[in-house]
Amino acid sequence: MFRKLLTLDEARQIINKHFTPKPLGVEEILLLKAHNRALAEDTIAPLDIPPFNRSTVDGYAVNAEDTYSAEENKPKKLKICGVVNVGELPKITVKHGEAAEIVTGAPMPEGADAIVMVEHTERKNDELYVYRAVAKGGNVMKAGSDIKKGEKILSAGQLLGSSEVGVLAALGLAKVKVYAVPRVAVLSTGAEVTDPGKKLPYGKIYDINAYSISGAVRESGAEPVYFEVVPDEAMELRKALKHALESADMVITSGGVSVGPKDLLPQTLDALGKPGVIVCGIAVKPGKPTTAAVIDGKIVFSLPGHPTSSLLIFHLLVRPILERMAGLKAKEAFEVKAFITMRMFPAKGRRTFVMVKLKRDKLNQLLAEPVQEGLSGAITTLAKADGFVEIAENQQFIDAGEEVTVRLLKL
Amino acid sequence: MFRKLLTLDEARQIINKHFTPKPLGVEEILLLKAHNRALAEDTIAPLDIPPFNRSTVDGYAVNAEDTYSAEENKPKKLKICGVVNVGELPKITVKHGEAAEIVTGAPMPEGADAIVMVEHTERKNDELYVYRAVAKGGNVMKAGSDIKKGEKILSAGQLLGSSEVGVLAALGLAKVKVYAVPRVAVLSTGAEVTDPGKKLPYGKIYDINAYSISGAVRESGAEPVYFEVVPDEAMELRKALKHALESADMVITSGGVSVGPKDLLPQTLDALGKPGVIVCGIAVKPGKPTTAAVIDGKIVFSLPGHPTSSLLIFHLLVRPILERMAGLKAKEAFEVKAFITMRMFPAKGRRTFVMVKLKRDKLNQLLAEPVQEGLSGAITTLAKADGFVEIAENQQFIDAGEEVTVRLLKL
Repeated sequence: MFRKLLTLDEARQIINKHFTPKPLGVEEILLLKAHNRALAEDTIAPLDIPPFNRSTVDGYAVNAEDTYSAEENKPKKLKICGVVNVGELPKITVKHGEAAEIVTGAPMPEGADAIVMVEHTERKNDELYVYRAVAKGGNVMKAGSDIKKGEKILSAGQLLGSSEVGVLAALGLAKVKVYAVPRVAVLSTGAEVTDPGKKLPYGKIYDINAYSISGAVRESGAEPVYFEVVPDEAMELRKALKHALESADMVITSGGVSVGPKDLLPQTLDALGKPGVIVCGIAVKPGKPTTAAVIDGKIVFSLPGHPTSSLLIFHLLVRPILERMAGLKAKEAFEVKAFITMRMFPAKGRRTFVMVKLKRDKLNQLLAEPVQEGLSGAITTLAKADGFVEIAENQQFIDAGEEVTVRLLKL
Repeated sequence: MFRKLLTLDEARQIINKHFTPKPLGVEEILLLKAHNRALAEDTIAPLDIPPFNRSTVDGYAVNAEDTYSAEENKPKKLKICGVVNVGELPKITVKHGEAAEIVTGAPMPEGADAIVMVEHTERKNDELYVYRAVAKGGNVMKAGSDIKKGEKILSAGQLLGSSEVGVLAALGLAKVKVYAVPRVAVLSTGAEVTDPGKKLPYGKIYDINAYSISGAVRESGAEPVYFEVVPDEAMELRKALKHALESADMVITSGGVSVGPKDLLPQTLDALGKPGVIVCGIAVKPGKPTTAAVIDGKIVFSLPGHPTSSLLIFHLLVRPILERMAGLKAKEAFEVKAFITMRMFPAKGRRTFVMVKLKRDKLNQLLAEPVQEGLSGAITTLAKADGFVEIAENQQFIDAGEEVTVRLLKL
């Protein structure tokens, strides 16, 4: 059976037509547990920050006017009328000719409109000598000057990193609404694949993809659901896929999609629901046997059995969809610029991806060194590759020494 | 009390002298749970990969010699002697003049030494016409050609990302030894700080740092242990610090270390154990009041109360130590090059760090725009900053348009 393969862009369009990735739900959780989750609603400040006029230095709260004539040689004398503690409602009012001791972060007392820094004063018992003038509002942070109540601070879809969690804490929000974490069933198929930890019969190899893809699923903000290896047998495969579809929001299989006689996957998927298989083979290298199906509203990706290919296709095709299901805003892929160390050609008529290892030369320039699978093997490639370089279908070659964009596989 | 502040490098040296960060222990866990953990031992391949000579294509196992004279117009005729299934010990031997059907990944049958690709053959019942010669070893991946048994594949200290987990799976390792995750007590101090979720009394602000620092601790491969806000009161502070030291491998406090009258932290730390406070103030801006102590073998960092400053000092000083305690190999800080959008000056005699927001101009060049705290506030800075730019103590200024290195705060 021969047919014209879809280009990568055509495959993306067809997937877009049949499946619109969207968040699966919203849950309210403790802010302490919210790190690395996707915010599910815009955050509107429920209060001014700071909530009150606040001293930004250690010093004395005064009426600015009282200091206007102060000079290094001609200090102004004020009477100390009390102390303003941090974290408390000030108990005193500062009248003209008076000064109240105050520390950084303490609220301004009534009557005062500026703070003289302690470095510009000298104190003798209850008398304060001010050696420098301060303007109205000097060293005072106004209520709401950082954030105004009602202001939008964070947007739905933001990933909550350390800074964002800090911002939510500043607003007093001990709970936060985040998007549900998508569950992704990850299963490997193939008569030759055995689960790690089991004895390896002759002719078999250990399953890699369920493990590497599970890691990549985690890195995309989702939770992998692990399935043991499914044999290349019609009934078993159908049962496993049905179970996977029932127990997860997305299904990713690997293996069992090449043109060998045992490739049951596309037929089995088609029989499970509508519209069934929507992409069956893509003109990319590696990754040609990639299959995508939609079964009654859920998306299934069948990735190649080759470990680096399946991880590559995951990054190109699956990850952007999964991130949107996790509620994350589309973000720039992580890329670096580097100089390629050898000439590279695309496979004829196929968008080609070359795994590369990054290293630095003597001048500290970043180099991208292709990890050639001819010389090593699939696992060695997986262990060595830092990222990949794309060569367009119609490009003749990329010459040694050219600057290329490397999309990173790991951070 | 005035003294000469330590430079950042001097502070690092003193910390190194008093505290050697090292992993806290090793645990064996399921590979399925090992994603994002630090590998605790070198991985030596326990088997060859592939474990057997393996076909890399769909086709026919043959004696290469039998195909040497094959041409497009003059095919060689062979007799099909059987099928080799994937994942099974081959039951047949291929004699001269014979060919066995085989699929990608299946083990080579006895007698055969090459695979003819299916595309170069034509089959008529039990007869196979071979249209192209294949060399000895052609389309066969030799046992051990990817990884040799006994070869070192991964190193202790590697972070287990999706690829590394895949490599361990390929080796059949269902369990893996990883370093213990350090526990880090994170507590905020200060009379003006209230826990999020509680009512905010006048004059107080919500705690930010325990939340943002906890996030940063997670991002460094460690587990934060959250403590409620500790009031600036000698007995309470001592009790909380003792408890924190008992329940965690590292303690990070924030607030309570400036020069205000209520700054009990250094004294309290000194009284808790030897050698006590080893760094008390650093010539950096921001972050001057940073304090470090070692108490009977455990390290305590007291970061500034200002949220961006504490996060900055965490990245500069704490994170490298914490990563080594987590067993992670020293890694390059995540940096990007960008053009700074305005002239920047260092604070006199202090290494200066300027928070910046990254954006792209019309030519898609990356720009670093300083987030000026004079114009906004502490929380706004936290929400906006993508990273920071360093200005050396002795540098006059960095001019607008110069290319700078931005160290990223978030990925």
